[in-house]
Amino acid sequence: MKKTALVTIAHGTEEIEAVTIIDVLRRASVSVRTAGANDIVTCSRGIKIIPDVLLDNIDRDELFDAIVLPGGMQGMENLTANYHLAEIISNHIYNGRLICAICAAPVLLADHKFLPENARITSHPSVRPQLKRFDYSDDRVVEHENLITSRGPGTAMEFALAIVRRLAGEEISEKLAKDMIHQ
Amino acid sequence: MKKTALVTIAHGTEEIEAVTIIDVLRRASVSVRTAGANDIVTCSRGIKIIPDVLLDNIDRDELFDAIVLPGGMQGMENLTANYHLAEIISNHIYNGRLICAICAAPVLLADHKFLPENARITSHPSVRPQLKRFDYSDDRVVEHENLITSRGPGTAMEFALAIVRRLAGEEISEKLAKDMIHQ
Repeated sequence: MKKTALVTIAHGTEEIEAVTIIDVLRRASVSVRTAGANDIVTCSRGIKIIPDVLLDNIDRDELFDAIVLPGGMQGMENLTANYHLAEIISNHIYNGRLICAICAAPVLLADHKFLPENARITSHPSVRPQLKRFDYSDDRVVEHENLITSRGPGTAMEFALAIVRRLAGEEISEKLAKDMIHQ
Repeated sequence: MKKTALVTIAHGTEEIEAVTIIDVLRRASVSVRTAGANDIVTCSRGIKIIPDVLLDNIDRDELFDAIVLPGGMQGMENLTANYHLAEIISNHIYNGRLICAICAAPVLLADHKFLPENARITSHPSVRPQLKRFDYSDDRVVEHENLITSRGPGTAMEFALAIVRRLAGEEISEKLAKDMIHQ
């Protein structure tokens, strides 16, 4: 059966991160649903994206194989304020699903107390002070149990390929890296 | 005065390439106008983007400092079929402006006879057979006079940073690479 992923976006989401995640996962034949806090989402550098569905219309009990949270400071804050999303993530953690967050998005997980104290994570360096109580790493992509974190637009493709590795396997991840001329 | 760039998109445009170019140029304070062949553009992996303006509404005589063409095979073919865009590009070449093309997009330039025979270029490897009459390189980003070409989604950030270097200088390009955690 096809693997599934939920990618959430809001005004201020970093568009390189969001689009790279969605595009690369779809190249790996993952069934990706993009859920927006609004009908039309204006990203951090003004690009307007129409999400597949409204975040509020995602059933709280629906389970995806992965939830992926792009960054962008304002986007992260807007997604943090959405308690429906917090309930969805909570249910996914309870069910042992993959939770992935890049750039500023690990702060959302920390603010909702979704990260255990020993969580090995990374983030954009600018939000590191808000995450210093965790086992913080400067690696470009960090995997810790069912959590994958990463740093910024420049690491988005490595992050997406790491998620593909978990959902579709090493071989497909390597094939995609080659097709996309990723170094 | 602010530098300006026109980025064109159509159904089937590769969205990582389009969004990376637009985002990175805007981070460099380049005034970017996105022009779509349609009001809502459905990109190669299904992401729907609302462009700033319709391509047909760009004045044929308006000059930007750079025209940037994202790839995606179907997107490139749809943009090649748009003769208004061909006239716009022709006017920019005549005026010595920067022409940038990534992935499949160098084929658009070749099909319209916009590339001199000695042009040193690259492209996605899949369209190399259509470009073998030029001075073809396997480098990730190739600069030849007022032409910058590149290879695919995985080189989009290097491509965008090379354009920033030309429009805004080395220092800003390096600062952005650092902010975005580009390696």
